[in-house]
Amino acid sequence: MRDVAIVGVSQTKFGELWDKSFRDLVVDAGMEAIHDANMQGEDIEAMYIGNMTGGLFIGQEHIGSLIAEHSGLTPIPATRVEAACASGGLALRQAVMAVASGYYDKVMAAGVEKMTDVEDATPAIAAAADQEWEAQQGVTFPSLYAMMANRHMYEYGTTREQIAAFAVQGHENGSLNPKAQFQNKISVDKVLNATKVASPLTILDCSPVSDGAAAIIVVPADEATKYTDNPIYIRASTQASDTLNLSSRKSLTSIESTKIASRKAYDMAGITPSDVDVAEVHDCFSINGLIAIEDLGFFEKGKGGQAIEDGLIARDSDIAVNPSGGLKARGHPLGATGIAQVVELTWQLRGEAGKRQVDNPNYGLSLNIGGTGGTAAVHILSRDRS
Amino acid sequence: MRDVAIVGVSQTKFGELWDKSFRDLVVDAGMEAIHDANMQGEDIEAMYIGNMTGGLFIGQEHIGSLIAEHSGLTPIPATRVEAACASGGLALRQAVMAVASGYYDKVMAAGVEKMTDVEDATPAIAAAADQEWEAQQGVTFPSLYAMMANRHMYEYGTTREQIAAFAVQGHENGSLNPKAQFQNKISVDKVLNATKVASPLTILDCSPVSDGAAAIIVVPADEATKYTDNPIYIRASTQASDTLNLSSRKSLTSIESTKIASRKAYDMAGITPSDVDVAEVHDCFSINGLIAIEDLGFFEKGKGGQAIEDGLIARDSDIAVNPSGGLKARGHPLGATGIAQVVELTWQLRGEAGKRQVDNPNYGLSLNIGGTGGTAAVHILSRDRS
Repeated sequence: MRDVAIVGVSQTKFGELWDKSFRDLVVDAGMEAIHDANMQGEDIEAMYIGNMTGGLFIGQEHIGSLIAEHSGLTPIPATRVEAACASGGLALRQAVMAVASGYYDKVMAAGVEKMTDVEDATPAIAAAADQEWEAQQGVTFPSLYAMMANRHMYEYGTTREQIAAFAVQGHENGSLNPKAQFQNKISVDKVLNATKVASPLTILDCSPVSDGAAAIIVVPADEATKYTDNPIYIRASTQASDTLNLSSRKSLTSIESTKIASRKAYDMAGITPSDVDVAEVHDCFSINGLIAIEDLGFFEKGKGGQAIEDGLIARDSDIAVNPSGGLKARGHPLGATGIAQVVELTWQLRGEAGKRQVDNPNYGLSLNIGGTGGTAAVHILSRDRS
Repeated sequence: MRDVAIVGVSQTKFGELWDKSFRDLVVDAGMEAIHDANMQGEDIEAMYIGNMTGGLFIGQEHIGSLIAEHSGLTPIPATRVEAACASGGLALRQAVMAVASGYYDKVMAAGVEKMTDVEDATPAIAAAADQEWEAQQGVTFPSLYAMMANRHMYEYGTTREQIAAFAVQGHENGSLNPKAQFQNKISVDKVLNATKVASPLTILDCSPVSDGAAAIIVVPADEATKYTDNPIYIRASTQASDTLNLSSRKSLTSIESTKIASRKAYDMAGITPSDVDVAEVHDCFSINGLIAIEDLGFFEKGKGGQAIEDGLIARDSDIAVNPSGGLKARGHPLGATGIAQVVELTWQLRGEAGKRQVDNPNYGLSLNIGGTGGTAAVHILSRDRS
């Protein structure tokens, strides 16, 4: 198996991008990543696109061919990968395997979603849950995560304020990220008093409806310095599933797929959770950020809320979580998120993250989740090859 | 790169399966393939699912997690791959890379589609074309292929009867396949006088709306005989794209992605088109079967019609095409088709194809196409490892 490195990254601004179509977004991101890798379009040998639900949002499937055409990359193999909000993470994983296997040497992984072309995104998002056993019974995503929040508060004494603090920190970081959808700061009070979505979660606990795209170029680690002076190495790429249906799980306060994928990733990379300097975790709802930092082993189960409150995931702490602003503030164009997380880590490890730069990180970890944890993808990156 | 072999295959009956849900179908196929590979469910380490448009047909995305759960395979990585009607071929290709790379040793590739839960499948199928440039202008898939048929007749003198003869042969073979959706024979006259869909194509030139699933288990070639006495080796797995939009192409009578993917496949396998003994090609419409046998190099461009008429693709000819009945007679549950093609080739190479068995084939080739050729996936299999 060949080692794999990242030599180019990019992200469009995330937000309500009325002047950009689906195809514009991913072409913009792809071209910029190719430029960042000091390549030409014709260098790219294959591409993987993470996209959750082009079919329901814009009536478009067969997205690989579409993107290859509009990027001028036809006739390269172009494959769309889907796992709800983890689509981006899985697209990157396929790109890694395509290089690791020796099939290709220069592969793009991109993610894209155009969510604002429909009046109500909720029914399309519900397709990430179990349609027969959850969505058709009237359950929505906020309500699923609200149940998890209530249970976490009940089991561990986590406070409403601690959950809200995850979103507050996201906005704090997002205020320093020029590509974030929201660049305003918020307070715990503001979160608690915002419009209720599903008790206890308010609108400010929820990531927004977003348009956007992001892209990454991967090559064999042995060839990385041909393209860039600062390659970032992919030290682990793992994935696990859990039941799609939340009610089939043993626990509402922990996501088993995160635990399994992250433990495998630590093994692959030969590190422990305490070695991670910077992490991008999947806070589609604030409670999911809190659960993530526990399941990843950064903090003991039940202690995540206290850790947030104590500033232990801030940019200047031992483990900086979501310096980009996370899904809450950077925005959450579903299929793009898993790619954008790794783009942010690459910028952080290269020292190119501007005002939100974390102090000299070496190990970065991304956690990208589909649904309520039906899929989890974990990537560990480092500046050092081994 | 590790060589890869097929050790287990299965296909459900294809058809209007009112008593089977989406999840039933793929679980049935998966369990049978695992049994065929002499494995247990817990042996499977990862799975790839080809599915075109669960979102539009049944409101369900995040299909990997769903299928893993209902197959009892949670928490293995489960990834859905989509490229319209080539989704199955690409799912197999990812499974091949997952094994070739060394990431996994026992991987399932499955394909599934449940098309009969909606009243009209046409709008969902149209999502395989360019929504903005084709579908929104009123173009449907039969009309796109009808243009290709008209142009082929104009350029090469191909007759209407020759095109119809591809469908007639499909039904001839399908009549011997107990898993085919249609097991009745038809005649050229019957095709010509059937309900017109898009001139010159009639309903009997068109593959049907189908439910169904199929599955394949792949392992490293070095380990194949641990599971089965008759492993089938994957000698090539290739893929190419063309413009999604038909009007951007240089030619309407040839599919460039087929040519590129098949030439690469012949190189990978170290064979020429004349070495292929049995092929499963993508006859979503009869004209596409005709174009395929030309683009694959079985016959000269423009001579495909004559070859069909002369019986040169019959089961007892040098190259038996679509002994299963093809998409026309076996049925075409979109995401399942690319997997079902390779399942049929495996049965043929093993000598297990019953009444439709081709005489002692060694090399088999599958061509799975998305849209009007925006994606093409080619696999070459053989009984011999090299």
